[in-house]
Amino acid sequence: MNESHFLHGFLNPKSVAIYGANNKGNSLAGLQIMNLIKSSYEGKVYPIHLKLESVMGFKAYKSIADIPEIPDLVVIVLPAKIVPQIFRECGKKGVKRIILISGGFRELIGERKNSLTEQINDIAKEYGIRFIGPNCLGVYNNWYRQEEEYKSFNIFIWENLKRSKFSVASQSGTLSCHIWYDPENLDLGLSRSLSVGNEANVDIVDCLEYYKDDDYTEIIGLYIEEIKRGKKFLELAKEVTPKKPIIAIYVGGSKAGNRALQSHTGSLAGNSKIYEGVFKETGIIQTNYVQEFLDIALIFSKGIIPKGKRLGIITNSGGPGAMVANNAETHGLIVPEFSDTLQKELMSNLPSTASFKNPVDCTFDMDLPYFYITLPEILMKSGEIDAIIQYGVVGFQEVLDEYLKYDQIAKHAEFQHQPDEIVDKLAQKLLQPTMKNSQKYSIPIIYINPMNFNAPWSKNLRKNGAILFRLWDRPVNALARVCEYIQYRSKFQAKY
Amino acid sequence: MNESHFLHGFLNPKSVAIYGANNKGNSLAGLQIMNLIKSSYEGKVYPIHLKLESVMGFKAYKSIADIPEIPDLVVIVLPAKIVPQIFRECGKKGVKRIILISGGFRELIGERKNSLTEQINDIAKEYGIRFIGPNCLGVYNNWYRQEEEYKSFNIFIWENLKRSKFSVASQSGTLSCHIWYDPENLDLGLSRSLSVGNEANVDIVDCLEYYKDDDYTEIIGLYIEEIKRGKKFLELAKEVTPKKPIIAIYVGGSKAGNRALQSHTGSLAGNSKIYEGVFKETGIIQTNYVQEFLDIALIFSKGIIPKGKRLGIITNSGGPGAMVANNAETHGLIVPEFSDTLQKELMSNLPSTASFKNPVDCTFDMDLPYFYITLPEILMKSGEIDAIIQYGVVGFQEVLDEYLKYDQIAKHAEFQHQPDEIVDKLAQKLLQPTMKNSQKYSIPIIYINPMNFNAPWSKNLRKNGAILFRLWDRPVNALARVCEYIQYRSKFQAKY
Repeated sequence: MNESHFLHGFLNPKSVAIYGANNKGNSLAGLQIMNLIKSSYEGKVYPIHLKLESVMGFKAYKSIADIPEIPDLVVIVLPAKIVPQIFRECGKKGVKRIILISGGFRELIGERKNSLTEQINDIAKEYGIRFIGPNCLGVYNNWYRQEEEYKSFNIFIWENLKRSKFSVASQSGTLSCHIWYDPENLDLGLSRSLSVGNEANVDIVDCLEYYKDDDYTEIIGLYIEEIKRGKKFLELAKEVTPKKPIIAIYVGGSKAGNRALQSHTGSLAGNSKIYEGVFKETGIIQTNYVQEFLDIALIFSKGIIPKGKRLGIITNSGGPGAMVANNAETHGLIVPEFSDTLQKELMSNLPSTASFKNPVDCTFDMDLPYFYITLPEILMKSGEIDAIIQYGVVGFQEVLDEYLKYDQIAKHAEFQHQPDEIVDKLAQKLLQPTMKNSQKYSIPIIYINPMNFNAPWSKNLRKNGAILFRLWDRPVNALARVCEYIQYRSKFQAKY
Repeated sequence: MNESHFLHGFLNPKSVAIYGANNKGNSLAGLQIMNLIKSSYEGKVYPIHLKLESVMGFKAYKSIADIPEIPDLVVIVLPAKIVPQIFRECGKKGVKRIILISGGFRELIGERKNSLTEQINDIAKEYGIRFIGPNCLGVYNNWYRQEEEYKSFNIFIWENLKRSKFSVASQSGTLSCHIWYDPENLDLGLSRSLSVGNEANVDIVDCLEYYKDDDYTEIIGLYIEEIKRGKKFLELAKEVTPKKPIIAIYVGGSKAGNRALQSHTGSLAGNSKIYEGVFKETGIIQTNYVQEFLDIALIFSKGIIPKGKRLGIITNSGGPGAMVANNAETHGLIVPEFSDTLQKELMSNLPSTASFKNPVDCTFDMDLPYFYITLPEILMKSGEIDAIIQYGVVGFQEVLDEYLKYDQIAKHAEFQHQPDEIVDKLAQKLLQPTMKNSQKYSIPIIYINPMNFNAPWSKNLRKNGAILFRLWDRPVNALARVCEYIQYRSKFQAKY
């Protein structure tokens, strides 16, 4: 839990006071209170409002002084210029933690300090307050009640998310929050999310330090526009990456990118070459793409880490097989031609039109237990590969069901709709042995079904723990990045 | 329609005979007959089967000789070794067009000819037969009945697809077919699809020739493993690209890629440098990614072609704005800093925390008509940009609806559920002026909503003709490729 770290209290407050909250659905602070309700927050909630008697059913207070205890955490969504006064009131009350959502402190000036930022920093120092922000969105803790999934401490994510051990710290609110807004297409889940905004007091380095020793964080995602404490970051990252992968989006380098950064958080654009050097030196996986950021985390999230970069490809269609092979090599994976022994073993079971060299192309004419169980097992046991991508795990029952809707077909076709329980059992029977083998041999297997990600068979695969993609571009690129990291990490394996 | 081209008959047959068809749902030929039924094919269907009396309700014939007319098209799904005999029977009957689905002719040998391929080529020549395949999946024509959408001539795509003017020719069955299996997440639609397989007789160059003068083809997609008639391809491509964009996936170059190709279609691996040179010289847009292939086609499919590579970015969140700006420049787009005049115009309407330089960051505090109508219009009118990417078109009503499910919120919140008609009207009101401006100024606008692609607001945007993406990586990359093509094409603009 890393309870000794100061950020622990921000993620596990027993009571929260919110400035700026009202009953309007389109106000930021209103949304924050609604999120507390939605995620079943069990602590005390104290809205602070000059006029309202209550906010979303919680008794409102005219000032922080009126609240009957010292709130564990204070959230502020108010115009920048009155924030110093609020900070002082909080300090006098004895508050030690503030999340400052409001913008307008620094991002417009483009300098390290302006008087407002200086003022709040001075007040914070005077009263021993730590604060996150300004210009941030909040914090999220999906393990707030460890025994109860879907209870979280959450002021800023609209969706109830699956739990995982992927934790994020981000200098952009969107990257800490909006990217989770389609949970039905995202198997990744989330552990904690920290939106750090302009980092006047708490920075991304603090977050990394917290995640380093946090039992509920096994994979770390960072969105970086600027690192203020470079030396400390470097030190920490070197300590973390041999144990926990860090995936980082770094924005900067291009002219327009730098201009955007300056408007956004007011960061002085860094030299992207220096950042890239730091990432490389510390084994941080850098990406420019938010989808890749999520994909890499998804592969890690299953906890099955490949030992090397040799990819085995199973397919029932030549085109995707060829594209996967080609892109894999282009991105630094190895697609070895299988040994004669292995080819012979495969040949004895596959139809004559199949091919066995890697990719293994079973053609359309395939036998399901062989395709889902035996074939991956033969490859995993062979010692010739470190990861598998398997194309063509289509939901054939759904296809047939679609045809059965047509009278003319229903009357004559020699097949029938299978009840869901039977399909569920089939999925379990076909998938579970391979999931176990994947764990046993530490060989991740990535499935690709070109049908809808929420089609019945796709859902069945996902329910059984499979890593599933709809098309074959993304998993190759993400796996290549995972394997680069593995190579970096292998240098330390003797130590850990 | 290009009725004079020999491929026209393959896409518009008045009658089809099918060898290998049966009543089993899991046989390829069974699926083909079911697809004819599903897509309301109105021509005659003649299954050929030695024992069955009928197949899916169609009277079956013991041999092609028994069929009461000469079928316009014959489809064969039978083991390779009996195909020469079938070809001869077809020839004797007077058949002129065959689609040969079966594999096993060449792909295992790895040479240009083997005796089976030679045999069928000789027979085809003798009887004046043109044939597609072997080792292909079929053909698809979404304009078979021009007056009726969702009636098509289709033997191989399971889904009913939206019509468009995007036509595909592919040496991989999957790329001509499986990539359409999630139509609810794909706004692209399809015109024609030709799976050419091993090209023993009809090749991808024939397809390109057909599409060149086809009124129902405005964008061409090719999946290429090998081009056999290089000179003719070069000539044709040069003629086509000034009028119709060609998007090509070429697989080859890596060792494993080449090995996969050889197993797949038996292609002798080409020199990827030569292919890349040809694509560059002829203005073909090359991509290694199937998703990008579809994304580029989607942008073209709206018919609004940018005049240059200057990108305007509208956002309500700094992170995506910065990432779009950075990736855009990295991929060759220009993200110009706006002129003082334009910045002043923007400044007068946006909140003080906004930024105006490009990206334009409206922050969370935005006014919908300004965000959806005025702001894009100001940019389009300015003459300073050629395309727009707009982040943050979220479905706020859906978010609020989610909160209203919680009793405590419903009791107190000062907002309420809006009926669908009102939201529909709002979408129309906010979107239509911008869709018109986009057309008027020839400036494509791409929207990004991080919520589910089928969430109500996303559906509303799509229904109004918007190009929508869920995250911001893909549209930047695809737009960059579109703009490269525009630059190529601009050389010819005087001529056309």
